[in-house]
Amino acid sequence: MDDKSALIPVILSGGAGTRLWPVSRRAHPKPFMRLASGQTLAETTVERASRVASQGVTLTVTGRDYYFLTRDLYQQGAPETEHHFLLEPEGRNTAPAIAAAALWVESRFGEDACLLVQPADHLVRNVAAFEQAVTKAHALASEGWLTCLGIQPTHPETGFGYIRAGSAIEDRGLSIEAFVEKPDLETARRYVESGQYLWNAGMFCLRARTLLDAMAEHAPDILAGVRETWQASSTDQEPLELDSVRFARVRADSIDFAIMEKARKRAVVPVDCGWSDIGSWQAISELYETDALGNRVQGEGVLVDSRNTFVQGEKRLVAAVGVDNLVIVDTGDAVLVASRERAQEVKAVVDELTRQDHESAVFHRTVHRPWGRYTVLEDADDCKVKRLVVRPGGVLSLQRHEHRSEHWTVVGGTASVRVGDEEFDLGAGQTVQIPVGSLHRLENRGQVPVEIIEVQTGSYFGEDDIERLEDIYGRA
Amino acid sequence: MDDKSALIPVILSGGAGTRLWPVSRRAHPKPFMRLASGQTLAETTVERASRVASQGVTLTVTGRDYYFLTRDLYQQGAPETEHHFLLEPEGRNTAPAIAAAALWVESRFGEDACLLVQPADHLVRNVAAFEQAVTKAHALASEGWLTCLGIQPTHPETGFGYIRAGSAIEDRGLSIEAFVEKPDLETARRYVESGQYLWNAGMFCLRARTLLDAMAEHAPDILAGVRETWQASSTDQEPLELDSVRFARVRADSIDFAIMEKARKRAVVPVDCGWSDIGSWQAISELYETDALGNRVQGEGVLVDSRNTFVQGEKRLVAAVGVDNLVIVDTGDAVLVASRERAQEVKAVVDELTRQDHESAVFHRTVHRPWGRYTVLEDADDCKVKRLVVRPGGVLSLQRHEHRSEHWTVVGGTASVRVGDEEFDLGAGQTVQIPVGSLHRLENRGQVPVEIIEVQTGSYFGEDDIERLEDIYGRA
Repeated sequence: MDDKSALIPVILSGGAGTRLWPVSRRAHPKPFMRLASGQTLAETTVERASRVASQGVTLTVTGRDYYFLTRDLYQQGAPETEHHFLLEPEGRNTAPAIAAAALWVESRFGEDACLLVQPADHLVRNVAAFEQAVTKAHALASEGWLTCLGIQPTHPETGFGYIRAGSAIEDRGLSIEAFVEKPDLETARRYVESGQYLWNAGMFCLRARTLLDAMAEHAPDILAGVRETWQASSTDQEPLELDSVRFARVRADSIDFAIMEKARKRAVVPVDCGWSDIGSWQAISELYETDALGNRVQGEGVLVDSRNTFVQGEKRLVAAVGVDNLVIVDTGDAVLVASRERAQEVKAVVDELTRQDHESAVFHRTVHRPWGRYTVLEDADDCKVKRLVVRPGGVLSLQRHEHRSEHWTVVGGTASVRVGDEEFDLGAGQTVQIPVGSLHRLENRGQVPVEIIEVQTGSYFGEDDIERLEDIYGRA
Repeated sequence: MDDKSALIPVILSGGAGTRLWPVSRRAHPKPFMRLASGQTLAETTVERASRVASQGVTLTVTGRDYYFLTRDLYQQGAPETEHHFLLEPEGRNTAPAIAAAALWVESRFGEDACLLVQPADHLVRNVAAFEQAVTKAHALASEGWLTCLGIQPTHPETGFGYIRAGSAIEDRGLSIEAFVEKPDLETARRYVESGQYLWNAGMFCLRARTLLDAMAEHAPDILAGVRETWQASSTDQEPLELDSVRFARVRADSIDFAIMEKARKRAVVPVDCGWSDIGSWQAISELYETDALGNRVQGEGVLVDSRNTFVQGEKRLVAAVGVDNLVIVDTGDAVLVASRERAQEVKAVVDELTRQDHESAVFHRTVHRPWGRYTVLEDADDCKVKRLVVRPGGVLSLQRHEHRSEHWTVVGGTASVRVGDEEFDLGAGQTVQIPVGSLHRLENRGQVPVEIIEVQTGSYFGEDDIERLEDIYGRA
């Protein structure tokens, strides 16, 4: 093992997570889901990644829409680590994302540095076991092996791809004989019984140079497209936004298909680390202890003579009478009731909602913004009411609206407000009116969040009636 | 038949309707439930009653909390009829309520006038058949028969009492042999097959004098207690509030037990009028047509591979995946998921919520007031936000609050406002602040509803922090 090779965790954070609707949505995907611990998956992932980050640096590949919230969550999950971001203008699957990450790592830490690639939205309960496996994988990667972490299967799962392992590579891992597609149940049973198969969890340890060489051999068009994108991007900016025109032309493909299935020097490190891809409500429910009747209740639930039922609520009460084997998930604007075994088919609901162009396929009532977040309390023909929470240091864009007046009542913190040419501070219980067409800006110069109830009056309340004149987040 | 005897519909409107939670609640019981037609049960009941009201008058016995909303709904359902109200300080079951109604009818229309008693929360789909039966029952009552309307049973129901009919009384009805308790299923089957039994639906036609005589004979204590209450009450006021001290002492009993089961000259008029007591979500669901898979959806629902499932939503989306035979009822603050067959056991949920002193056992997020209604949009530690709707002519009490400031933004109509000693009008988009301790009043002198978003700031937002100095509805 080359003790000097750097290890840079690369977190891939995309994906709509439609199987966890109504909590996971396009504008609020799975990494942002909060677990029973109170942490989001993004936080636990970055915390885990930071423990093995040899240079105190992580790199995350994600979309612009997710950047600000991800950065904030990382600040919670791993405040001591330096977090860098590559922003994809659109998702092109994992091969282009990892290729771009390899270019980034190579440019910062040299071609011998290794990438530890992992998805942002998986759960690892035994972090020590994970770290031990990473140490082995890092050693293999440093020697030029394209290395996977392979999960010891606990049951004949038909939802994952499998890795068939071969002979041992010293005490560090096994060679890979083949990657195999999602099997049917009988095949999966055979795989598990054989002891020769591991789950492919999308976690890789790859030396930058090895990966780029393998791409040049097996997917030269993808590598060329990503290099072209790289050259057209401002690669010294933070976050680094990949050039949208070039990146859109790159062929979308997974790292598995593009490289791993074709490459020669491949290794797998088996690991039993309490891993879950949290791919369905069924999987979420299994994170909780059951009561005597097999029920699990997160939030406020009253269950009468009901069994094997998982309830996840937010603010509202969920009551069940005489039901069995259900998943009930309640959010501010939608409730899902599904048979446990069929819970992963919630994707069909999202497809239907997408077809209807239904807001609940994409947005929650709470929407995150670079400056904080807002929650829609009322959305009617004659008004819209929101609660705004502006983080310390948060600044809304200097803006105006053509079709609505706004009325702010501060309920917490001290808001620094500009309306027209006037600037002043407002504390709890104070109000201000912003007439149609008035330039205005809201800022939190204090140490605690500013909380505001905003009442919009007028004739049209769409988010597109915002003319931004200045914005510190680059949205003007 | 005495063609001249008056017929006064008497509507009994009490009861918590816990079997229809979460829509029906103590503060918003079953008569206020809105059906698919858009009408409430209270409206359809008063409309039906008004068609047979010989004097253009109805009398409703209800509680003070339900008075204003009931009166408003009656104005919608039967605007041409004169509606009178007897307000019970507490429910004492049907015998005292009907006795008080008989005293009222006797005092206004003489002892020969007849009462047509019916619950406020039953459904009659064939009103013509109902009217024909009422004509017959009225004739019998005028001749001194204590008369029931008996529903032709459609199935062996175990949830109702039955009436065993005897010989015919000319072509107008049948004598009653016995009232029998709710049977078990086998007995119910026998009853239905025999053709001799009818459902007791709590609908009676009774001459005032006959009823009072029967009470004097069979329940003299109840009659004496109600007469004493009557004498202690201001019986010329409208609404007529029964004296609370005396009425509380009256023995609670049903008219069935107290009189009908014991009296001699009893008749029943069989009727097949599409009656339902709407006693469960199962019964509600049967009011709707099913789709090809047996599903019924009121509101916004997306059902994937689900069968025999009833969905009733309000503003939120309800999604179901792979479920069968469920009732899903969604309201602003609670959702019920129940097995269809077990839906009536929702009472157990209400019992548990009552035990927990949970608000959702009693109140909805929308609360009706004499002046209109409000809906709670946000109820947090630092603020409370409501939408107020003030009807034309509605006047909130002159009031002040010790612990909160209020901030009103008018979003519709013209509000006449008093704050301190100042009075002024506000139109859409205008705002006013009401500091802690300031006297204030809100009034709608216009022709359209006044709609206001109220933001409360301060430290305590309970409904008991209202000091009322004047109130046109007698609440000061």
